This record gives sequence, structure tokens and C-alpha cells, in this order.
Amino acid sequence: METLNTDISNYRNLLKHYIEIRDEQSLYGAEQLSKAFIKDNVPPEEIINLHIQALSELYPDIPEYLQYSMNFLLEIMISYGVAHQEFQTLREEQS
Amino acid sequence: METLNTDISNYRNLLKHYIEIRDEQSLYGAEQLSKAFIKDNVPPEEIINLHIQALSELYPDIPEYLQYSMNFLLEIMISYGVAHQEFQTLREEQS
Repeated sequence: METLNTDISNYRNLLKHYIEIRDEQSLYGAEQLSKAFIKDNVPPEEIINLHIQALSELYPDIPEYLQYSMNFLLEIMISYGVAHQEFQTLREEQS
Repeated sequence: METLNTDISNYRNLLKHYIEIRDEQSLYGAEQLSKAFIKDNVPPEEIINLHIQALSELYPDIPEYLQYSMNFLLEIMISYGVAHQEFQTLREEQS
């Protein structure tokens, strides 16, 4: 659980920095974090979950329609998670 | 391009319906749409793009920090798109 908390904290801090500054460094950080997530087999819908959690921590007054819209996006991404899992299995079989 | 427009329109309408009603039918629709996207080889970052576009059409006054946060999410999802593409290639090689 410690790793997960670190991820949330990393994601939230990087997101906050990007929203405030929008510099190349934040985008590079996002790319590195993303590659680490893939390496750790974090499915794409979990990224949406992380994003929802980070946003609600950074902006507790986020409009309700946006929370709902993120739930919808999460639902859409679940099928991608299934496809991603299939990919991991296929890759493990080949290695 | 016609297919893409239909997708945007479908996505936007389904998202709007979900935000307003939040019923099981919208979630079922999201699942079906998601499966169709995967079948059409639409990468996950393109879903984030679709979501940004649909949101800005439905809510032109969306707060700036949320637009930036979605750009960040898009950046994170690009590596997943690369992994997804790798999966498609692997699957094609096996079939």
C-alpha cells in the first residue's frame, strides 16, 4: 500500500506542478511516471482513478458534472484495462 | 472522418446522458462504445482526446485548471497508447 500511496502523492504533485507552471519538465515527469506505471502493470483505468483522486484532493470544490464525467471515462477505460491485461499475458507467454 | 465524427457525437451524447441521469443504460452504452473503439484500434490517449472535446462542447465554461489537468492525463496515457499498439502488433503476428 505504501507504493500506491507514493504513486498517488507523486501523481498529485506532478499534476499540481503541471497545472500551475505547464513546463516541459512536468511533461517529462509525466512520461517517466507513465512508463513506471506500465512497468508495474498498473492498468489504464487505475490511472483514471488516480487522476480522479488527485483532482479531488487538489480541488475539493470540483463541479459535480466533472466528477460524473470522470466516472464515465473510468467506465470507458475498463475495457482498455482488459485489453491491456490480455497484452501482459501474451507478452509473458512469449518471454 | 465521418466515422470519427460519429464517434465524437456518440461519445458526447452518451456522456451527457450519463451526467444527467447516471443510469445503468448509459454505463452499458459506455461499455459497448469502448469495445467498438478497441475493435477499431482507437488508442487510449485518443479516448482522452475525445473526452476533452466532448466536455468542452457540453460545458464551454469548464475551469482552466481542469483543461490543463486533462492535458496532463493525455500525456500520461500516451505511453499506454504505445503499449496498446505493441499489443495489436503482437496479436496480429500470432493470428
